[in-house]
Amino acid sequence: MRVKKSAISAIVLAAVLFAGVAWAEEPIEPVPPVKEVNLAKAELGKKLFFDPRLSKSGFISCNSCHNLSMGGSDNLKTSIGHKWQKGPINAPTVLNSSLNFVQFWDGRAKDLKEQAGGPIANPGEMAFTHDLAEDVVKSIPGYVTEFKMVFGDDKIDIERITAAIAEFEDTLVTPNSRFDQWLLGDTNALSEDEQAGYKLFKDSGCVACHYGMAVGGSSFQKMGVKEEYKSKSKAEGRKAVTGKDEDRFNFKVPTLRNVELTYPYFHDGQGKTLTEAVDVMGRLQLGKKFTDEENAKIVAFLKTLTGEQPSFTLPILPPSSDKTPPPKPFE
Amino acid sequence: MRVKKSAISAIVLAAVLFAGVAWAEEPIEPVPPVKEVNLAKAELGKKLFFDPRLSKSGFISCNSCHNLSMGGSDNLKTSIGHKWQKGPINAPTVLNSSLNFVQFWDGRAKDLKEQAGGPIANPGEMAFTHDLAEDVVKSIPGYVTEFKMVFGDDKIDIERITAAIAEFEDTLVTPNSRFDQWLLGDTNALSEDEQAGYKLFKDSGCVACHYGMAVGGSSFQKMGVKEEYKSKSKAEGRKAVTGKDEDRFNFKVPTLRNVELTYPYFHDGQGKTLTEAVDVMGRLQLGKKFTDEENAKIVAFLKTLTGEQPSFTLPILPPSSDKTPPPKPFE
Repeated sequence: MRVKKSAISAIVLAAVLFAGVAWAEEPIEPVPPVKEVNLAKAELGKKLFFDPRLSKSGFISCNSCHNLSMGGSDNLKTSIGHKWQKGPINAPTVLNSSLNFVQFWDGRAKDLKEQAGGPIANPGEMAFTHDLAEDVVKSIPGYVTEFKMVFGDDKIDIERITAAIAEFEDTLVTPNSRFDQWLLGDTNALSEDEQAGYKLFKDSGCVACHYGMAVGGSSFQKMGVKEEYKSKSKAEGRKAVTGKDEDRFNFKVPTLRNVELTYPYFHDGQGKTLTEAVDVMGRLQLGKKFTDEENAKIVAFLKTLTGEQPSFTLPILPPSSDKTPPPKPFE
Repeated sequence: MRVKKSAISAIVLAAVLFAGVAWAEEPIEPVPPVKEVNLAKAELGKKLFFDPRLSKSGFISCNSCHNLSMGGSDNLKTSIGHKWQKGPINAPTVLNSSLNFVQFWDGRAKDLKEQAGGPIANPGEMAFTHDLAEDVVKSIPGYVTEFKMVFGDDKIDIERITAAIAEFEDTLVTPNSRFDQWLLGDTNALSEDEQAGYKLFKDSGCVACHYGMAVGGSSFQKMGVKEEYKSKSKAEGRKAVTGKDEDRFNFKVPTLRNVELTYPYFHDGQGKTLTEAVDVMGRLQLGKKFTDEENAKIVAFLKTLTGEQPSFTLPILPPSSDKTPPPKPFE
């Protein structure tokens, strides 16, 4: 089943046209509220996103580290994987991730479908294999019928599993933040301080990297331009993909949408608070030391980027059958 | 806000009265669909139930082991605790747990409120302390206002935290299973095999322990009556509470509601499938070896005990503040 853009988006569109595209002059664009989505596929993907049986342990699901109750992140410095392994990097939010130009901090996946297969087979994360994940899903009668309903035939493979997860993730946008309301013409949506914070954000150069619908997610940039960034993390960023020395510490610029919810910050999670993150970014990337007052205004602006969180019914997962391979949490 | 029993329950009640209490002769009673509930308190409790910040790691919530997508259980032999510790016992389902006469396998908590405090402070589970849990909740502005709204004043303590969680858990009943529809007079709700399975369940003596609304949860019974139960588990059951030798291997009889979803079975999770569990129970508790056909009928009956799963919107948790003590997943 396919649904077209909702009535709400039509209304928004009308409002925008009426206002003569209020944000045309701005470097940030509103998050589009709905995109065309295959609802049945997204519902299947939602189940898979919440299903810990895609991990070796039967304990870790996509939602464990991209927790949709918590801004699509885990709010930990770095994530916890199979057998409590300490992950090398801070889990990026899944919210609005469909707006990223590539996926992962180092951009090693071109889209959400490719991304979704990564953690399942990563020995430090869900520690499964694609083959075993397929075997588990094929053994669950409720999934067998649902895959057939969605895809039209009996095939269940990692391609379809990750395609369904990606379809669900496409729905995880957060429109209608106060900032977007302001962009769309509601001049009362932001306080004076918040507007001043946005002006500072633009005038100081933050928007050079944090722009567009996602306020980021559109380019790789070096972490530590004006000053070296000192990290305990071994992550080298884009270099891990290209092998080039000049790509060392180049990371995908993270989205600032819902940044109020996605603490702690940076690829290594070393930025504890928004105040600290703004300070570090100003100094290291722009060579600018914000005053406490400036910092507070930018933080106030950033908090207006919190949009409507995805609202949906907790999925009920189809039960395993007697033939389902049991999880192996302690192996 | 308090709501009275819903219109649906009124209709059910009317239907029951009309049928002259169809189940009056039966040892199993229908799960009551709604009870009086303080909705605001239950909504707060739902957030806390899903909040991993009640654990030391910031990674484990009540829902981690009592997963409401998976029959209120984790579908693991024994649960995974802080730093991937292997738990000593199979996580009992939280579904219909309000119908249990006591909580935990050994009955060491008199009610759900008392139960809820256990895992938070258990070093092998969430590994926190009640004091630290209180500090975290007090530091989160969204919780501060919500506690005040629910309880009428500023106090936030473990008593109120667990009271809210218990209020939410009171809502986790699963009415309207096919078996209950049959009890309520819909003679077509069960197939002949399922009805034959129920008759076997009664005639063989299973109902001596598995009776009432929850089909269990009403008494302690010895595991291994006719034959010794061989387990790798160190759990001694009720003896751990009373200290009495005669209480060794006495466990609370688990509910069989939604038993199709709460695999694996028994206090040690050694029963992999319903077929196996029925066989073991028949031999060890009743001295009866069911034929394959009998076993299949009983299993068919047990699957009719799957009720309507709790349906609710995934809660969005209020974000931490700069003052919130950060989680310590690797300490």
